[in-house]
Amino acid sequence: MLVPDAGLPERVEIYEVGPRDGLQNESNTVPVAVKAEFLERLANAGLRTIEASSFVHPKWVPQLADSEELVERMNWHDDVAYPFLVPNARGLDRAIEAGVRHAAVFASATETFAQRNLNRSLETQFEMFSQVVTRATENGMRVRAYVSMAFGEPWEGAVDPAQAASVGKRLMDMGCDELSLGDTIGVATPGHVGALLDACVAAGVPMESIAVHFHDTYGQALSNTLAALRHGVTTVDASAGGLGGCPFAGSATGNLATEDLVWMLDGLGIAHGVDLDALVATSVWMAGELGRPSPSRVVAALAPSD
Amino acid sequence: MLVPDAGLPERVEIYEVGPRDGLQNESNTVPVAVKAEFLERLANAGLRTIEASSFVHPKWVPQLADSEELVERMNWHDDVAYPFLVPNARGLDRAIEAGVRHAAVFASATETFAQRNLNRSLETQFEMFSQVVTRATENGMRVRAYVSMAFGEPWEGAVDPAQAASVGKRLMDMGCDELSLGDTIGVATPGHVGALLDACVAAGVPMESIAVHFHDTYGQALSNTLAALRHGVTTVDASAGGLGGCPFAGSATGNLATEDLVWMLDGLGIAHGVDLDALVATSVWMAGELGRPSPSRVVAALAPSD
Repeated sequence: MLVPDAGLPERVEIYEVGPRDGLQNESNTVPVAVKAEFLERLANAGLRTIEASSFVHPKWVPQLADSEELVERMNWHDDVAYPFLVPNARGLDRAIEAGVRHAAVFASATETFAQRNLNRSLETQFEMFSQVVTRATENGMRVRAYVSMAFGEPWEGAVDPAQAASVGKRLMDMGCDELSLGDTIGVATPGHVGALLDACVAAGVPMESIAVHFHDTYGQALSNTLAALRHGVTTVDASAGGLGGCPFAGSATGNLATEDLVWMLDGLGIAHGVDLDALVATSVWMAGELGRPSPSRVVAALAPSD
Repeated sequence: MLVPDAGLPERVEIYEVGPRDGLQNESNTVPVAVKAEFLERLANAGLRTIEASSFVHPKWVPQLADSEELVERMNWHDDVAYPFLVPNARGLDRAIEAGVRHAAVFASATETFAQRNLNRSLETQFEMFSQVVTRATENGMRVRAYVSMAFGEPWEGAVDPAQAASVGKRLMDMGCDELSLGDTIGVATPGHVGALLDACVAAGVPMESIAVHFHDTYGQALSNTLAALRHGVTTVDASAGGLGGCPFAGSATGNLATEDLVWMLDGLGIAHGVDLDALVATSVWMAGELGRPSPSRVVAALAPSD
């Protein structure tokens, strides 16, 4: 039954993160041919923004060490944007060399995570990202900025919305065109979502440039998404089949599953352009490649039984 | 971080259904001593309404065939209500004989499910329930009414909110004091939740007597709960550890997990009286008894790792 709900958007853009945020957290490395087929299946299922991989140093994320080869082998659809994560200046060099048109940078909302993940202070991360974003835009690239640990993190606990919003605003001022608020360890709840969105808008970030990125570690990802949509957000990050997980959370659960998001949007009559059956078939196929079932509820419910 | 959200209630009553709705769908029968300990642990974790079991014919639900013995062995807390499901007049006889003070009846919102589950028409279910509810209230019992398949069902598809609300109103008019709207196969989405609540109130059922009962088959249970809370609902059914599942849905996923609900309520600053750590410990213990991990995300995240 299609029952719209007042105050929700007519259309939501789904930013698919499975190939990057999903596969980077898988214990097994997926062959590049499988990655290319994954991207192709996702595009054919109707996804129009697909974060394809990362130009991270292979020492840190060996699962994504084959980005250059993936760029060569993947089938580039003209109407699909394929952002690649660029963690630093060296990653941007590689992205430019490979001819990538969309980049994403991954900043920290907190001092402790900046030091642990980036090996630099919260303040000096801005110097690094400023150079990266400036050079990327000068090369004609569009750049998305992630604020990771935007709601809470393992060492400092809950993060003040004003603090996370301030980090986001500084990234946008560098020339990024989209800000993704990441609940990296999945601790957010709906009131906190509204508070952070309010803080971002108060800091000067337009609501239409904000995306939300929820992990389902505590089962909150979809209700947090609903809260964000009511607050005016129209771009939602999700991972096909719920692939991924945060290595810091000590839990097997990962990103919001794209299928579970699509089920909710369908029921609400919100347009999104994704073919659910094709997407479920993709996640069933990828689960076979990974050798474990998809954590997505919708995939489990709709997958053909053996 | 505790961030209230305007328009949500200050307190939610959690109606715990794990011992009945959870265990009736487990393939293994749990020993009565384990059931009694489960009830005791749930009460000690702060739950104040715990649906304990069902006086259903053992032929249909052999998992719950020991209700009389459970009544003898369980530790009855004075400040906890322990409803038992009474499917029909014979079940009520047994409940009265056992001295039970709280009953629940389980009606169908649709013609097809009435015939398949109750072996009678939608209309004649009311004759049966009218006699059961009248006799129960004459015996001083409080009676909750479930409207099952209130959102959709496997044979008829989506259920018209006016139809489900009409069934609920007729049950309330018999003398029931609480109406639980059951998404038995987990297909509801937030707009549909609001539409059914509006229809119930329009039919004359007071919002304060309505409870919601969501299954997580498609990952929607918590976002549907959030939508219901925004609509004014203050009683939510949930199952410790996410125990249970619908035998018709072809999926392993079951009820909304009480722990996942508690996590959201805690974040929103909504009072509920439940000790999350004690509840997680209970679900970890019960998962051991059942020999499989809890499907609750919060239990998976907070359980001590091996």
